[in-house]
Amino acid sequence: MPRYALKVDYHGAGFAGWQRQKEHPSVQGAIEAALAKLEPGEHTIAAAGRTDAGVHGLAQVAHCDLVKDWDPFRLSEALNFHLRTQRVAIVDCAAVDDDFHARFSARERRYLFRLIARRAPLTHDRGLAWQVKRQLDVTAMQAGADRLIGRHDFTTFRSSICQADSPVRTLDELRVEEHRREYEVEYRFHVRARSFLHNQVRSFVGTLERVGAGSMTPDDMTRALEARDRAACGPVCPPEGLYLAGVGYPKDPFTG
Amino acid sequence: MPRYALKVDYHGAGFAGWQRQKEHPSVQGAIEAALAKLEPGEHTIAAAGRTDAGVHGLAQVAHCDLVKDWDPFRLSEALNFHLRTQRVAIVDCAAVDDDFHARFSARERRYLFRLIARRAPLTHDRGLAWQVKRQLDVTAMQAGADRLIGRHDFTTFRSSICQADSPVRTLDELRVEEHRREYEVEYRFHVRARSFLHNQVRSFVGTLERVGAGSMTPDDMTRALEARDRAACGPVCPPEGLYLAGVGYPKDPFTG
Repeated sequence: MPRYALKVDYHGAGFAGWQRQKEHPSVQGAIEAALAKLEPGEHTIAAAGRTDAGVHGLAQVAHCDLVKDWDPFRLSEALNFHLRTQRVAIVDCAAVDDDFHARFSARERRYLFRLIARRAPLTHDRGLAWQVKRQLDVTAMQAGADRLIGRHDFTTFRSSICQADSPVRTLDELRVEEHRREYEVEYRFHVRARSFLHNQVRSFVGTLERVGAGSMTPDDMTRALEARDRAACGPVCPPEGLYLAGVGYPKDPFTG
Repeated sequence: MPRYALKVDYHGAGFAGWQRQKEHPSVQGAIEAALAKLEPGEHTIAAAGRTDAGVHGLAQVAHCDLVKDWDPFRLSEALNFHLRTQRVAIVDCAAVDDDFHARFSARERRYLFRLIARRAPLTHDRGLAWQVKRQLDVTAMQAGADRLIGRHDFTTFRSSICQADSPVRTLDELRVEEHRREYEVEYRFHVRARSFLHNQVRSFVGTLERVGAGSMTPDDMTRALEARDRAACGPVCPPEGLYLAGVGYPKDPFTG
């Protein structure tokens, strides 16, 4: 069966997450239903990252197996036609070898977290960012973030329901950008690793926000990491600011 | 009665425009209803620009008259509390003199138009930008835009229901920015004038898109302007990409 890699954007609101569920709408379920319009029957697709409810996709990568040989561009257009009432879109599509697996072939995941400090409620960015009321100290947040870079036991920043075998991960990047606008400040967290634990990025950002607000110091960040204790983590921040924003493969399936 | 200037953000979707209407939700109606929660009775507010249905506000300016002396910050917080279920927010508030009028004192309006070229349907920017399928020539669009700068009879770019006395306006700025992303290109039109005719910005952008697509030339833009004929205008583009994005006053009411 020919295999296709799909690059997928989706708005997290309105989905109970990536993973197919019987009772609730999911991104996986939406795309599988669209595939069934093209080739009737059961479809099971796999994704690089199984995002939680409310988390957004920007260039998430999945793969599917089909019976017919599809022109990749026509396949993406046909899927988008069937997905048109939902906020999911196939932004790129490529034929790939049988040994390509969206999840197991991935060598890097990139996440973006958008945090907006502003007094008034959000209007255009509602559901697209986490809002706090007060401005934060970006230098302190970056100093705290720097303490997390490298290979560590990240038990502190891992959900209690995380199913990974090991809490050890290597964090390659955690960069905080500040964008000042007329009456709000946006902090963009760029996070990159081979793989992540469940709730790891939201645990990082929730704790770094406490550093930015002055209720924790960068040294507290080191202490929290070294505690290897979930209780040492700051509040886990809400999902609506989180975007799975890119996946790296040994060979990019979409160019070539 | 003490007068207050309000700086207002709103999402155009869900509103039949700024102006109060009996049968349809409006931004003016929403804010007036919130004011009536603070001081019972009829309220009538005025805005710098009466945006059409679907058009967004980013730092729109309005003014209101109240009986009590309100601390401006507390007034904005109280209004935001009553507006919380709607995508309208008071982002700044200031006490102003009786002779300040949000509309008549304004010396400059700034609009932003967001146009995104991308094959796949929009997900996060749905309702926040106008989408076209193919990339455009930004150099040609800027050359076309340059033909419109200055004082002209803009009959060509004016809605047939425009109520202004004269079709003559002075366009101070029409700058096109290109932002290239992984699988889309955004064109941002920054437009600035003392005042605008009805549908003027959407008529400009709809016609400039034709120039960017190659079906019109910058010279055609000059011919369209000189025709002073509505029929010479390109298609008027949809409202969801348009933002009233700032108002200038001889003295900024919000700093001082």
